[in-house]
Amino acid sequence: MERILPFLIATILATSHASPSSSSEPHLIHLLRPKHGAGGHALKGVSCLSWRFGVETNNIRGWKTIPSKCEDYVGHYMLGSLYRKDCKVVVDEAILYAENLKLTGDGKDVWIFDIDETILSNLPYYARHGFGVEPFNSTLFNEWVNTGEAPPLPESLRLYRKLLSLGLKIVFLTGRSEDQRKATSTNLKKAGFHTWEKLILKKSSNQGTTAVVYKSGERKTLEESGYRIVGNIGDQWSDILGNNTGNRTFKLPDPMYYLS
Amino acid sequence: MERILPFLIATILATSHASPSSSSEPHLIHLLRPKHGAGGHALKGVSCLSWRFGVETNNIRGWKTIPSKCEDYVGHYMLGSLYRKDCKVVVDEAILYAENLKLTGDGKDVWIFDIDETILSNLPYYARHGFGVEPFNSTLFNEWVNTGEAPPLPESLRLYRKLLSLGLKIVFLTGRSEDQRKATSTNLKKAGFHTWEKLILKKSSNQGTTAVVYKSGERKTLEESGYRIVGNIGDQWSDILGNNTGNRTFKLPDPMYYLS
Repeated sequence: MERILPFLIATILATSHASPSSSSEPHLIHLLRPKHGAGGHALKGVSCLSWRFGVETNNIRGWKTIPSKCEDYVGHYMLGSLYRKDCKVVVDEAILYAENLKLTGDGKDVWIFDIDETILSNLPYYARHGFGVEPFNSTLFNEWVNTGEAPPLPESLRLYRKLLSLGLKIVFLTGRSEDQRKATSTNLKKAGFHTWEKLILKKSSNQGTTAVVYKSGERKTLEESGYRIVGNIGDQWSDILGNNTGNRTFKLPDPMYYLS
Repeated sequence: MERILPFLIATILATSHASPSSSSEPHLIHLLRPKHGAGGHALKGVSCLSWRFGVETNNIRGWKTIPSKCEDYVGHYMLGSLYRKDCKVVVDEAILYAENLKLTGDGKDVWIFDIDETILSNLPYYARHGFGVEPFNSTLFNEWVNTGEAPPLPESLRLYRKLLSLGLKIVFLTGRSEDQRKATSTNLKKAGFHTWEKLILKKSSNQGTTAVVYKSGERKTLEESGYRIVGNIGDQWSDILGNNTGNRTFKLPDPMYYLS
């Protein structure tokens, strides 16, 4: 069962490209994990919905793992239709905003995307590791990254294509490290992201800094080079806080982990 | 029925003071409005849960009324247990933060509270006006404010008492206008908030500015007067964005209206 799970998840994410707003995606995870706590209702004694509210609104900070009793809830959320719908609402709003921009056409208007859980989905990995209930294991996670097999987030692919069609330049700004450049660019292309202005990865000199500090610095450098950041989207608050955050920010859902 | 609704809501909010974390509050609204869309599951064709995610994460901005199909969903949410649990998660986190503060003891450490939907609940009003589905009517709303009958948000009362016990000073910073000072202070005391360092209301010179601009200006003045804003809590993003926002901000739920 474990060996087919990544395939099933990739299929769920991939087969829905054609109709990103359809609610017909199969709920295969329910067959795999037919447990309580699915579908959005609270578990007795632990309000996983309220915990998710706390996390997504940046009220709860600095956590290392999800509450163990919320593993099934988070798993069902991530692989069910609600996560997909939550992403759709964000991307619909981003597209509405982008379509009403007055662009200069000088090629300096950029939109920043984070990568993990924004452009590429690591669900095949997290489904095998308790959806965030296990402490982060960089060795295992980097092995997964290096496979280059992460599927796209369908809604982000839709936003990416729309932004390109509007003439915006794309900048990927990720906490992945420079030595993962090849695996990352290969993965991006495989997932349908074929063009970008910049792919900014974390240099060894940036190791040890928080995501907020690292990403703020890179955005400052971009703006000092003459780029205008018209939009900025990520799954972590640390993607969209700090300085030079862009004219408007968008927060995708991610109840699986927290990066400061 | 309509005439007893405010009383029932006030009872729901009031009777649960004694046990803010109990899940035994009566769900009287279900008897009053036994419709579909309750309890957190999505309505067909409208993902009210995703809309709420979009609103609470500050992705969806500038809206005037809630989606009409989400009236029942928002009503059930506000009067059911989930709203109460969502508030509890935020306040638990705020108390955890406050208890770990190193305070100077010079009386200059303040915590800012917004008032409406933060300290006082206007649910008795909004329950009679479609939980945000009707366009805002300032005449009717001000009539309600002037009754001074708004019940407290139980979790905020708990936070308020904890902060006072830790030696923090309380500043109320509200978009209510200066001519509502008497009604507001009477209401605050009736609801259990008996002491404060400052009650800042909107002067006529501030009319026409956004909440972000008005509140940022007042916070700046506070800090220039020597106060240190160690915490800041509100139900709107405009309560906690801008400048001088405080060392840490907290966002309470409010899917009923949006203030820029």
